[in-house]
Formats: sequence, structure tokens, C-alpha cells
Amino acid sequence: LRCGAAEIVYGASKTKEQIAEIAAEMLGSGQKTVLITRMSPDAAEFVSSRLPLDYNEAARAGIAGERPAPDGRGKIVIATGGTSDIPVAEEAAVTAQALGNEVTRLYDVGVSGLHRLLAHTDEIMTASAIIAIAGMEGALASVVGGLADCPVIAVPTSVGYGASFGGVSALLSMLNSCASGVSVVNIDNGFGAAYCASMINHIGVI
Amino acid sequence: LRCGAAEIVYGASKTKEQIAEIAAEMLGSGQKTVLITRMSPDAAEFVSSRLPLDYNEAARAGIAGERPAPDGRGKIVIATGGTSDIPVAEEAAVTAQALGNEVTRLYDVGVSGLHRLLAHTDEIMTASAIIAIAGMEGALASVVGGLADCPVIAVPTSVGYGASFGGVSALLSMLNSCASGVSVVNIDNGFGAAYCASMINHIGVI
Amino acid sequence: LRCGAAEIVYGASKTKEQIAEIAAEMLGSGQKTVLITRMSPDAAEFVSSRLPLDYNEAARAGIAGERPAPDGRGKIVIATGGTSDIPVAEEAAVTAQALGNEVTRLYDVGVSGLHRLLAHTDEIMTASAIIAIAGMEGALASVVGGLADCPVIAVPTSVGYGASFGGVSALLSMLNSCASGVSVVNIDNGFGAAYCASMINHIGVI
Amino acid sequence: LRCGAAEIVYGASKTKEQIAEIAAEMLGSGQKTVLITRMSPDAAEFVSSRLPLDYNEAARAGIAGERPAPDGRGKIVIATGGTSDIPVAEEAAVTAQALGNEVTRLYDVGVSGLHRLLAHTDEIMTASAIIAIAGMEGALASVVGGLADCPVIAVPTSVGYGASFGGVSALLSMLNSCASGVSVVNIDNGFGAAYCASMINHIGVI
Amino acid sequence: LRCGAAEIVYGASKTKEQIAEIAAEMLGSGQKTVLITRMSPDAAEFVSSRLPLDYNEAARAGIAGERPAPDGRGKIVIATGGTSDIPVAEEAAVTAQALGNEVTRLYDVGVSGLHRLLAHTDEIMTASAIIAIAGMEGALASVVGGLADCPVIAVPTSVGYGASFGGVSALLSMLNSCASGVSVVNIDNGFGAAYCASMINHIGVI
Amino acid sequence: LRCGAAEIVYGASKTKEQIAEIAAEMLGSGQKTVLITRMSPDAAEFVSSRLPLDYNEAARAGIAGERPAPDGRGKIVIATGGTSDIPVAEEAAVTAQALGNEVTRLYDVGVSGLHRLLAHTDEIMTASAIIAIAGMEGALASVVGGLADCPVIAVPTSVGYGASFGGVSALLSMLNSCASGVSVVNIDNGFGAAYCASMINHIGVI
Amino acid sequence: LRCGAAEIVYGASKTKEQIAEIAAEMLGSGQKTVLITRMSPDAAEFVSSRLPLDYNEAARAGIAGERPAPDGRGKIVIATGGTSDIPVAEEAAVTAQALGNEVTRLYDVGVSGLHRLLAHTDEIMTASAIIAIAGMEGALASVVGGLADCPVIAVPTSVGYGASFGGVSALLSMLNSCASGVSVVNIDNGFGAAYCASMINHIGVI
Amino acid sequence: LRCGAAEIVYGASKTKEQIAEIAAEMLGSGQKTVLITRMSPDAAEFVSSRLPLDYNEAARAGIAGERPAPDGRGKIVIATGGTSDIPVAEEAAVTAQALGNEVTRLYDVGVSGLHRLLAHTDEIMTASAIIAIAGMEGALASVVGGLADCPVIAVPTSVGYGASFGGVSALLSMLNSCASGVSVVNIDNGFGAAYCASMINHIGVI
Ligand SMILES: Nc1ncnc2c1ncn2[C@@H]1O[C@H](COP(=O)(O)O)[C@@H](O)[C@H]1O
Ligand SMILES: Nc1ncnc2c1ncn2[C@@H]1O[C@H](COP(=O)(O)O)[C@@H](O)[C@H]1O
Ligand SMILES: Nc1ncnc2c1ncn2[C@@H]1O[C@H](COP(=O)(O)O)[C@@H](O)[C@H]1O
Ligand SMILES: Nc1ncnc2c1ncn2[C@@H]1O[C@H](COP(=O)(O)O)[C@@H](O)[C@H]1O
Ligand SMILES: [Mg+2]
Ligand SMILES: [Mg+2]
Ligand SMILES: [Mg+2]
Ligand SMILES: [Mg+2]
Ligand SMILES: [Mg+2]
Ligand SMILES: [Mg+2]
Ligand SMILES: [Mg+2]
Ligand SMILES: [Mg+2]
Repeated sequence: LRCGAAEIVYGASKTKEQIAEIAAEMLGSGQKTVLITRMSPDAAEFVSSRLPLDYNEAARAGIAGERPAPDGRGKIVIATGGTSDIPVAEEAAVTAQALGNEVTRLYDVGVSGLHRLLAHTDEIMTASAIIAIAGMEGALASVVGGLADCPVIAVPTSVGYGASFGGVSALLSMLNSCASGVSVVNIDNGFGAAYCASMINHIGVI
Repeated sequence: LRCGAAEIVYGASKTKEQIAEIAAEMLGSGQKTVLITRMSPDAAEFVSSRLPLDYNEAARAGIAGERPAPDGRGKIVIATGGTSDIPVAEEAAVTAQALGNEVTRLYDVGVSGLHRLLAHTDEIMTASAIIAIAGMEGALASVVGGLADCPVIAVPTSVGYGASFGGVSALLSMLNSCASGVSVVNIDNGFGAAYCASMINHIGVI
Repeated sequence: LRCGAAEIVYGASKTKEQIAEIAAEMLGSGQKTVLITRMSPDAAEFVSSRLPLDYNEAARAGIAGERPAPDGRGKIVIATGGTSDIPVAEEAAVTAQALGNEVTRLYDVGVSGLHRLLAHTDEIMTASAIIAIAGMEGALASVVGGLADCPVIAVPTSVGYGASFGGVSALLSMLNSCASGVSVVNIDNGFGAAYCASMINHIGVI
Repeated sequence: LRCGAAEIVYGASKTKEQIAEIAAEMLGSGQKTVLITRMSPDAAEFVSSRLPLDYNEAARAGIAGERPAPDGRGKIVIATGGTSDIPVAEEAAVTAQALGNEVTRLYDVGVSGLHRLLAHTDEIMTASAIIAIAGMEGALASVVGGLADCPVIAVPTSVGYGASFGGVSALLSMLNSCASGVSVVNIDNGFGAAYCASMINHIGVI
Repeated sequence: LRCGAAEIVYGASKTKEQIAEIAAEMLGSGQKTVLITRMSPDAAEFVSSRLPLDYNEAARAGIAGERPAPDGRGKIVIATGGTSDIPVAEEAAVTAQALGNEVTRLYDVGVSGLHRLLAHTDEIMTASAIIAIAGMEGALASVVGGLADCPVIAVPTSVGYGASFGGVSALLSMLNSCASGVSVVNIDNGFGAAYCASMINHIGVI
Repeated sequence: LRCGAAEIVYGASKTKEQIAEIAAEMLGSGQKTVLITRMSPDAAEFVSSRLPLDYNEAARAGIAGERPAPDGRGKIVIATGGTSDIPVAEEAAVTAQALGNEVTRLYDVGVSGLHRLLAHTDEIMTASAIIAIAGMEGALASVVGGLADCPVIAVPTSVGYGASFGGVSALLSMLNSCASGVSVVNIDNGFGAAYCASMINHIGVI
Repeated sequence: LRCGAAEIVYGASKTKEQIAEIAAEMLGSGQKTVLITRMSPDAAEFVSSRLPLDYNEAARAGIAGERPAPDGRGKIVIATGGTSDIPVAEEAAVTAQALGNEVTRLYDVGVSGLHRLLAHTDEIMTASAIIAIAGMEGALASVVGGLADCPVIAVPTSVGYGASFGGVSALLSMLNSCASGVSVVNIDNGFGAAYCASMINHIGVI
Repeated sequence: LRCGAAEIVYGASKTKEQIAEIAAEMLGSGQKTVLITRMSPDAAEFVSSRLPLDYNEAARAGIAGERPAPDGRGKIVIATGGTSDIPVAEEAAVTAQALGNEVTRLYDVGVSGLHRLLAHTDEIMTASAIIAIAGMEGALASVVGGLADCPVIAVPTSVGYGASFGGVSALLSMLNSCASGVSVVNIDNGFGAAYCASMINHIGVI
């Protein structure tokens, strides 16, 4: 990506010592911003005892070093169907911010209460890119895609039970969206969606 | 069901001669209305050469004998996401009419063009029961369920391609609907949905 | 729904403090009845130290405030195939009561011991709506649907092992029911079934 | 199996010439009875122009040579849920007869019309073995297994549409049967079920 | 089943107190033998402090009261592919014994070491019924079915990892067995297989 | 989308007469460009007898009216793994052109012959957006995503046999891509990918 | 691969003219042997009117130009479970021969008739590599793998019905093989197995 | 296998006492090398208190007795897509060494950073056999297979989340590899891959 943007550490299969060491080395060699995802509160505590770290517990992600000033074309809207989708949304938000984007959060605007979503038509119509995050039936992506004129990145979540099959139901919904301009990333992959949205929000930005 | 309601013949695995014979016998023994579903145009032609038959080609279903006067509590609304879902909707409509219900059709009101659906809020708010029919991502059931105060019977359809998996994507969506008051029948089962809706529309009707 | 009916709190992804606060606010602003589902015994203890709460441990659900007097058209029958399905049935029962319904429980009447079910033909024939709850092969819904004249809401449960696949086997059985008038909700969704049944039992009730 | 029993030719992947040649050779070398399964009417016509063949068109199977006299312990009951299951049932019947068994057919006794099944309690209680054949929700096996005292061989059929998934729904139902004494064979495998039932019906017969 | 045979308690979803009480009541009312399956060692300890219980820890099953003398026609052979399948095999063995059968165990005779199986051709050729138990590729059922002349009940087990999918691979193998006379029960259902085998072994026994 | 862009007709479930009528009406009411997808050669012949139509047989899609001049920020690269993926790629190409984009085709650059792909590093590094189309193992998306700095829209195709499961294998591969900046659309959905890519290529274009 | 070995044309998605042209060009530029797979009899007729072609109809594959003399270390054994697997086996055989290998065919040696397989222990013990081909339960790979000391390449086939799921059952069996030294290729991929086996049979051959 | 090679103990379902006893007996009766796989650190500690054991904690495997000198034809390359795949790779490495092979490790050379892989073209071009290990999208096997001239054994891993489905996504990718010479073993089966690779590396070695 553009120079200045964050380096990224995927914390999932690393010890807290490994994470701290990798991030310290990156910061030491001149990187201003290091995004660390899938990091436990315990690892975060360890890392912040060694480095300046802005940890977001809901997201299980944090920014080591400086959070860059937003330098994208516009705003990235992050919408969720319910409150249980918020951890994925926050992973997306932290990622987007680490990559230099301004973020608008629209949480709990799922389609069974349509008025809550329609109350935010303004934000939806003026976004550079929208991240639509939902579990269970995943209908949010289609409704948002139908309203918006910008690219929509859909993120199915593993929220739900029974026939939600750990996010498969929402994933299939989103892949079959009858709204144009919707593409999909892996279940619970808030990071990946924000990375795509940031690329879109930085097109033509030098 | 209540006296007077239709007898039903499932035509799928029967020859045209078998269908005609069974329906003739029913009418002959005093039944006023016989609903025949999953019947090919060819079989319908054969049957109507022997019996009074009102055949609906889109539905691949027909009413032999008399269509009963509507005697339900109110109207059954039948909504579809797209135009390709119409055959399933018409199977539901013919069934509902054969069972003594007044039907309102709201076709092609899928969620990627929300205004088309919202233009019919009146019909949705005054229905006795709603049949929500959609393929692909099946989001219609959740949006309708969120708007309506009456029971919603959702019918997934096999419309779509790729990851729609012959209706599985829509089926899972509907089972996971975050709107209360939504229940689901088998893929493409317009008949079953109308049967449920008719039962609901006739509660307390003697 | 009709005025007077319960507000509903889905406890699954909320802390005990959040649940207590939301319910207290609802009761404080005039709501008479608050149904709380998917709430652990531990959360229930916390909530009842702050609010009047009638907690049903098997159901993992409770009613804060007053339980409303039944005002439906008739009774809702809740039937289960086995004893392991009882938690789902109790979730349905608590929900139905919170929404103003009288409930008849027919537990452990699974189809491999048909006489136990047939002994209750009376209750089945006089219900407003029936909730048929079963895991493993889910045959109960078809047998009940064949006997009854009222709508049957089928709830597959995750009870079983091996090829029950966490409720998928029962779910598929129920979707394929050859009895008319059967519709289906998500695996283990006692709440959803009771909500549908209550809507049916309150049709035309002002 | 016991001497005298039929040789078996699985016609599915063989030309009519191959079938005729194999069967002729078997009969020529002293075999009294040759069962041929999965044989088209066209192939049957060809074979019967060369050999004595008793072809059952519904079963798509036939017996070349002599049909043996029944020499089992008792009767094999073959029950189906619907009329569409009859081809599988007839494959089972022809197989059972070719292997020396007396067969009782109970067709269209599915569980959504329980009285039709219960009217045959006598046949069920006196069978040596029962073959329970059903598509869609496959509940027949559990109900029959609950009534009977003898082994029940369940055969799921590919009858149905949508979420019947070509017999998978019925297969899972039957594997999860809560009735004891039920075992299962492959989808549409009438032959295999009859082979098992014949073994059981000939135990201790020399 | 025949008088004298065991009553059965499925312990899986019952407390140790419930199991003890149900079994005590059965024994108290004249039942000689009570088979209890899916019972933890802890529950077994509790039950044996109140009742005579012969508990088999590998099987997680036990016989309360007396073990009946074998009164079947012959022996039931129980074969496993590996040593990890032994718990399922022991559930089958305890069940078979509780139902009055003599049992021969052939453990760890899987098909990748064919000589171990072929060394037991005698036991296989003289069994009344064989229970073939295997996880992973489940090939044992086909090989045994090809050798034996008696009914084979196949039990897939959840032994394995990766693409064994908790027993699904073995289940599908067994359903597709190209050997005649093989039928299948649910994954890990040693009880069900033994029940079927016992029925077969007692045919014609008064 | 931006004014001037194409209207779109999805031909899949429409008769040739319906397609011609809808397109004629759109052109008649001032629309300059109408994109028609999923249209058979036969329907195309009929439509072109009534309207100016530029039909692409591989794509089964065509542009009625004028093809707009490209007015995007840069080029859209369309890459395929094999030659069998070309129909999907051409649907994407026609769509992209109808929406005002310049297209670069890189066909048959699958990862088992990496040099063919690496020979086009220039085109990949300078694209506005890339559409990566592949069946079977779908690895192209990850490799392209690893090389490129722009958003990659991955399209799984139903090309392959056996365990390709009609595109499911490629779909899963692409959803799990370990390269950042990759999002996915439905199997064979060349249209949807091009619509997303066009949105990206027109960001900030008035 | 080694110089001299065949070039390969995958005919599946090519017209007969394309196949002929590609093969002619390869032969024209000095290639001695061209293997063409997945080619219809009709295309083969067209190709042989232009080129020397040795077409194997069962295999739907052929060798254009010269068949090379075998120059491998030893023999490749190709074994099948049934006669319906022969087309896949012949694809493997033609491929192996085109790549310079001597082939031994052991057809219809499936595990339900173990003696037929054991009669060929000699060929199995002296092979360089074995290709084990089977549909339905796929047990052949495990049994062969248990007997042999050389690498076994397993090919599941789509032969079967019902729960064979187009080869999935055999595929899973083979992946779970408890015999060491077994690896697996795609369903019906005779070509791929032979390519692997040829590599093994040519190790150290210059 | 060849004399001198290791005996193998699969520790997964054995107690530490059983493992120690079996290994001791093997060493006692003259076996020089015993490979123990799927053994916990705790069991390893117990075993090494009784036997000379070289335990590899990442691999959860160890060699009791002597590690044999490499006597294969060349080297086995073990490549992984990411660092999370290392446990599976180490199981393969320990196995290969126990069977007398020299091993080259190429870890974290996944296809989204192609240069890291291409930097090792030398090792890839000179290997006897390559083990390609990857989770998530599993593309490594195709890219390596396209580069290499020797057999590639692909091992899908359960690394990943969401739509990686515990290794299924990687497994399908690998089975569909469009590179020739790739075969596949079970998810996470490092042992099985190394066994195959060792067989290949020892061909013609006496
Ligand atoms: N309908 C059927 N389904 C499955 N297997 C069958 C069927 N009919 C016959 N068979 C089996 O096919 C064998 C004969 O196969 P073949 O030697 O190929 O003719 C018989 O011994 C049976 O095991
Ligand atoms: N391991 C088992 N798997 C499946 N069903 C079982 C098992 N053990 C017992 N059963 C069944 O459970 C019934 C008793 O259930 P319950 O009345 O709940 O104790 C028995 O009649 C058996 O049909
Ligand atoms: N190949 C395609 N796949 C999926 N959706 C499509 C395709 N082509 C067109 N569409 C959608 O179909 C809509 C038009 O549908 P209709 O009004 O039925 O003609 C467009 O707005 C697109 O969203
Ligand atoms: N039956 C087959 N299944 C899978 N891949 C094949 C088959 N036959 C040929 N191939 C592959 O197809 C390639 C040639 O493809 P193409 O260049 O499209 O003709 C060969 O190099 C093989 O890798
Ligand atoms: Mg839009
Ligand atoms: Mg509602
Ligand atoms: Mg009914
Ligand atoms: Mg019974
Ligand atoms: Mg046998
Ligand atoms: Mg990139
Ligand atoms: Mg071997
Ligand atoms: Mg290669």
C-alpha cells in the first residue's frame, strides 16, 4: 500500500513475547504505525508494558506507535445488523483507522427494524465505501447495497445459533445479494473488509 | 380442514389419467372444489377435456369444480423478491383461493429496491397473514417480518445460481430471520405456505 | 404486537448488568411485562436482586414484572419428542405465557411410543396452535400435523448425537413434512415458535 | 447365501447384450433363478426374447428362470410412506421373492395419515422383518419401529423436492430413529434392504 | 421384546439421582435386568451405592440387577477396525449381554492389516449376526460383509480427524457398501447395533 | 450509479420478446446504453432484429444502444486461470465496457504456470482494479492479490469436475485468501465483479 | 517431466477443431507423443482424419503420434473395485502408457470379494506404484495399501447412487485410509493418478 | 517397508503408560528406531523417563531409540504457507527423519508473498519429493506443483477461521490442483505425507 500506511501483525498464532518483539522491531526500524489484530487482552497488557499501544478490547486489536491522520477521499461507514456483531465491526474500525481512514459507525441497524437503518440514509449516501456486517440471515448487505451508490464490502459474522452454522447462512446470503456492487470477505474478517475499503477510499491519493 | 374446503391432489408423480380419475371421483362424490398442484400443461389439457378445470399455467396448478367464495377473516398477502419467483407465488395464490381466501399479490418487491416494498406498507399492515417468497439471499422475509404485525410464512425458492445452491441460501436466511413471527416451509413449497396461511386466516371461522 | 404484550430482551450476548439495566428501564417507563431469554442462572440471580423476576431455570428465561393474564382465543399445546427437548419447550412455554397465552405441556410423546401421543388426541384436536419440538429424527411434527386441524409450528432441537448433526437431521425432517399446515423455525428456537403461535392465538383479539 | 437362492446381476452399468449373456450363462450352468436389477424396459424386452424373464416394470427388475417357492420362516412386510416410493418397494419385493420369501405390501401408509398405518397393526406385529420405505421426512421407519417387535430395515428414497436433497433428509431421519431395532441402507436401495430381510427371514432354515 | 429381556435407561441427559431412581423402580416392580447406557463413571458410582450394578467403564454402560443367561440361537460377533473403536464395541457388548446374547469380540482387525481379520474367518462364518465397528474409512463393514453369510450391522464411529468429519466418512462408506447384507446404524450407536443383532439372534426363540 | 451509465437487464428468466420490449422501452425513454446479460444466442438474434445490439456470444451478453466512451480513472484488468473460464471473463468485460471502463484481458494465466502470470506484472501493477477469475482450486486470486496494490475482485467459476463441486472449491479458496485486498462475488458472477470494479474505477469521477 | 515424454491436451472444453489444431502443431514442432484426454468419440474421429491417433473409447482419451516404449523402473498396477470404474482406469492406463510406463490391469477386484484381489498378491507386491480406483465405499485403497509396499495413488470414482454423492463417499474413505502410503487425487481423475505414478516409476531414470 | 526403517506408534488414543510399554517392547525385541506421533508433552516426559526419546514439541512426535542415518535417494523438501502450519510440518519432518530421509524446511513461503517462495527455486527443483503444507486457501500446492518436476504430496491444514471449515477449503483446493503430479492426504496428516514421500525417496534403495 501507499507509503506511510501501517504494517500489520496477525496476532492469532503468536505468543505475547513474539508480538511485542515483532512490533518493537518494526517501530524501531522507522515504521510509524503497527496494527496488531487478534490479540488477547492479556497479550495487549504485555505489549503495552513495552510499547505505546492503543488497544481496543472489543476489537481484540490495537495500534502500536501513532494513529495516522485520516488522508482518504472520504468516510468509511461501518454498519452492523446487531450488537453482537460489534467485535467484528470494531476490528474493521481499528484497521481502517490504522490505515488512515475516517470511520462512521452505524451499529444495530439490522433489517428487522428498517427505520433505524433508514434514519441514516445520509451517511450511507455520502460514504466512500461501506462495510456491512451481519450474522444470522445477513440481509443487511442487500438492503444497504440497494440504498448506496458506493462499493459495499459485506462481512458475514459467526453470530447466531442453530442453522446459522457459524456464519455460513450469512455468508451465502451475502454472496447471493441481488444488489449490485456488493462483494464479500470471510466470516468474521473485519480486518479484510477494512483493508479493501481503505484501498477504495485511497484511490488516487498519493 | 373446515367443511367445504378443497380436497387436494398432488400431481407430481401421477399420470394425467390418474389425476383426471381421482379428481372426477372426488367431484362425483360431492366435493365442490378440488385443487390439483404440480400438474403439467399437458396433463391440464387432458383433465379439462373431462372436467371443469381452471388451470393457472405459471402455477402449474388448477382448480377443478368451483372456486369457493372467500370466507376468511381478511386478506393473505403474497410477496415475491423478484419476477422469477412468480411460479411459486402463483402456486400459493391458487392454493389460497381454492381454500377460500382473498389474495393480494405484491410481486418483485425485493429488498435491493426497498422503495417498491415500502410503497405497499398499507397492504402489509392490514394482512391476516403474509407469504414472503424469495430466492437468492432470501432477505425479503426479514424485512417484511420487521414491518408486519401478522404471521409471516417464508418460502425460499430455487431461483438463483452458484452459491444459491438450489434454494439453500434463501432457506438458511429465512430460518435465521431476526424478525419475530416468521416461520418457514420447504424450498419452492408455495402450496404449503398457502395452506398454513389459510389456516391462520380461518381461525374462528366456522 | 398488541399493546400490553411483553417487551423482549435477548440475553445471549449481554452482561448481567446490561440485562438488568435494560429491563429496569423498560419497567420504569411503563412496560408491565419484560421477557428475558437466553439468560444464565447467574445473570438471573443478579437481575432478581434488582427487579421482580420469575426465572425458569430449564428455559433459561424469565419474566420481569407481571405475568399477563391469558387473553388468547384458546390454548397453545407444546409437545416434545423426548425429555431432553424440555429446555427448548420451556423457553417456548415461558415466551407464550409472557405474551398472554395459556399453555398445555405434552412432554416425551415421541413417535416411537405412539400410544403416549395418541392418549392426548383431545388436547391436540382443541388447540389454537401446536408447537412440536423434537431432535434426532424430528418425526413428531409430521405425526402431530397429520392429527391436528390447527397450525403446527415445528422446532428442531440439537438433541442427539452422530448423524443428528446438531439438529440438522430434525430440521430437514420437519421442512419435508408430508403433513399440511406445518411450518418450521430455527434449531432450538423455542422463543420464535411461541411468538408465532401467540400471534395465531391472538388473531382478532383486540 | 443358502444353496438354491438366486444369483444376482446388477444391470445398471451393463448393456442389454451383456445382461442377456451373463444371465444365460448362469441359467445354463445350473442356476435356477437369476435376479436382474436396475434393468430398463428396453433391456428387459431384449432379454426376454432370449430367456424366460418375469419383468416388473415399476421395479425395473426381473427374475430370469424360475421364481423359487417361499421357504422363509414367515412374511416380509414392505411398507411405503407414499405412492412415489413404490418403485423402490417393488425392487425390494422382486428381490425378496427371488430369494424365496413371501411378501406383504403395505403401500401409502405414511405417518401424516396415521390411521392408514394403524389399520395394519396385525401385519406389522406378525412379520419376520419389515422394510420401511419413505422419502421426504422418513418418519415411517420410527413409527413402524415403535410398533413392531421384529427388525426393521429402513430405506430412504430420493422422492421429494427442495430440502429433501435427493433422499438425504429421509436418510438422516432414519439413522436418528429413536425406535430400537431399526437399521438403514443406502438411498433407493430396495435390493439391499430385501437382501438383509431375506437373510433374517431364513435364519435357521437349512 | 421377549419377556425377560432388559428394560433400558438412556442415561445421557439424566442426573445420577434420576438414573438411580428409574432403575430402582424398574427392579422394584419385578424387572430382573436393567441396562443403563451413556452413564458417566461418577453416576455409576452413585448408582452402585444404591443398586447391584455391573458397570463397564469403557462402554460407559452397566447392567443393574442380573445379567441374563444367553438364550439366543448362536453368537454375536463384534469386530472393530482399531483400538479406538473399543468404547463403541463395549457399549454393543454390554447391550448384547443384557439382552441375552453370547458375544465374541474381534478387536483391532481393520482392513489395512488383512491377515488379522482373516485369522478369524471361523468366528465370522459361524456367527448369527456380526456388528462391524469402524471409524475413519469404515472399510471393515464391506470386507466382513463380503466374507460372512449372516446379517452385518455396521456402526460408524467418530474416531479419526480431519476429513473423517466426526464419523461421516465411515458412515457414507458403510451405506455404500458393495457387500450384500449390510445395514447401518447411527455414528457411535453401539447400543442400536446390538439391539438389532439381538433381535436377529433371537428369531424363533420363544 | 453515475448518470449516463447503462441500465441493466438480467435476461436469465425472460423470454426474447420480454427482453426486446424492456430494452426498447429503455432506449426509447432516453437511456443511451442498455446492458443485457444471460441472453441466449437465439434471444440475441431476435433482439438485434429490432434494436442495435452488440452481442458477445462467449459472454452471452450484449450492449443495446451505444457503447459509452471509457471515462474511468484507469484500466480494469480481467485475468483468468484457464481458457474454460473465458465465458465468465467475457461477461465481466462486456459489463465493464457497458459501464464506461477500459479493459485489459489476461487469459489462461493460472498459477500452475506462474511465468505466464509474472510476464504481465506491469499490467497488474498499474490497474485500477483487477478481476481474478478461476475455477478448480481458485489460487489465482491469492497470487494476484499478493502481487497487486489495488482491490482484487475474485470470481470463482463452476469450471472443473469431481471435488470442484460446481465452483464451491474455488469459492472457498478465494474467501480464505491470505492476500489482503481480495473480496469475492458469487460463482460465475462476472457481471457482479465488473459492477464492483467499475464503481472503484469511477470513484471521484463526476 | 523428462524430455521425450508426452505433451498433454485436456480436451474437455475444446472443440474438435481446436484439439486437432493444437495436437497437429505440437507434432509438427517435433513432439513425438501427444496425449489427449476427455475427448468424445466424435472429436476423436475428426482428429484421426487429420493425424495418426490411437483412441481408447472407454478412456475417452487417445495418443496422437507415437506411443513411447516403456522406460520406467517397473510396472504400474491399475486396480478397480468394479467394472463400472473401468473408464477411469482406462484414462489412467492410456496416460501411463503415453508417459512411458508398462501397465498391469487388475479390474473388478473390489473388497466384497476379497479372494479376487488376494489372487493377485504377486502383481501387488512387485509394482513400482499402484493406482487404486473405486467408487461407492472406496475401501479398495485401504486394502491394497495394507498389502503393498509401494506408493498407492487412490482415485475415487463417481460410480454409485444415493449416498455415494457423486464420489464424495469414496473420496472421504480414501483420505481417511488407515493404511500408510496412500495419497489421493480428485474424483474420476485417472489422468492425475497416472501422472503421479509415472513420476514415481521414473525416479532416477534419466 | 525396507528393513531397518522405524516401527510407528500412533499415540492419539493411548495412555502414556501404554505408549511407553509398546515402545519399550519394540526396542527390546531389536527394533532400532520407534517413531511415536500424536503424543502430548506430558506423555513424552513420562516416556523419556523410561527410554531414550528425542521429542519434538512442535510436532508432538518423537523418536525413541536411534535416529537412522539418511539413506534415501535425495532430499525431501517440506514447505508451508504460513507459520501456523509449522506443527504439521514438524510432524512430517520427524517422520521423514525417522524413516531415513534428509529434510529441507521451507517455512512461511505462502503464495501471497511469491518472492519468498521463488527465492527457493533451487531447493524445489532438486528435491526427490516435496510436501506442500497449507491451510486457508491451500494454493501453495498448485504453485509448487507448477514449479517442481518431482511428486508433490499436499497436506491441507486446519489453520484458518470462518470459511476455512477446519481445513476443508484447503483440502478441496489441493484436490482440484491444476498442476500435474500433486496428490493429497488427510487434513493435518503430516505423518502420512512424509510416509509417502519417504517411499518415493527410497525407490530402488535396497
Ligand atoms: N439395486 C441394487 N443396488 C445395489 N447393489 C445391487 C443392486 N442390485 C444388485 N446389486 C449388487 O450387485 C451385485 C451383482 O453385481 P454384478 O456382478 O456387477 O452384476 C449383487 O451381488 C449385489 O450385491
Ligand atoms: N446409546 C444409545 N443410543 C441411542 N438410543 C439409546 C441408547 N441407549 C438407549 N437408547 C434408547 O433410549 C431408550 C430409553 O430412553 P429413556 O426412556 O430416555 O431412558 C431405550 O429404549 C433405547 O431405545
Ligand atoms: N449476470 C448477472 N448475475 C447476477 N445479477 C445480474 C446479472 N446481470 C444482471 N443482474 C442484475 O439484474 C438486475 C436487472 O434485473 P431485471 O430487472 O430482472 O432485468 C440488474 O440491476 C443487476 O443487479
Ligand atoms: N483428465 C484430466 N483431469 C485433470 N487435468 C487434466 C486432465 N487431462 C489433462 N489435464 C491437465 O490439463 C493440462 C493441459 O490443459 P490444456 O492446456 O487446457 O490442454 C495438462 O497439462 C494436465 O495438467
Ligand atoms: Mg448500490
Ligand atoms: Mg413482525
Ligand atoms: Mg394437520
Ligand atoms: Mg420395535
Ligand atoms: Mg455377506
Ligand atoms: Mg495486494
Ligand atoms: Mg502399504
Ligand atoms: Mg510439477
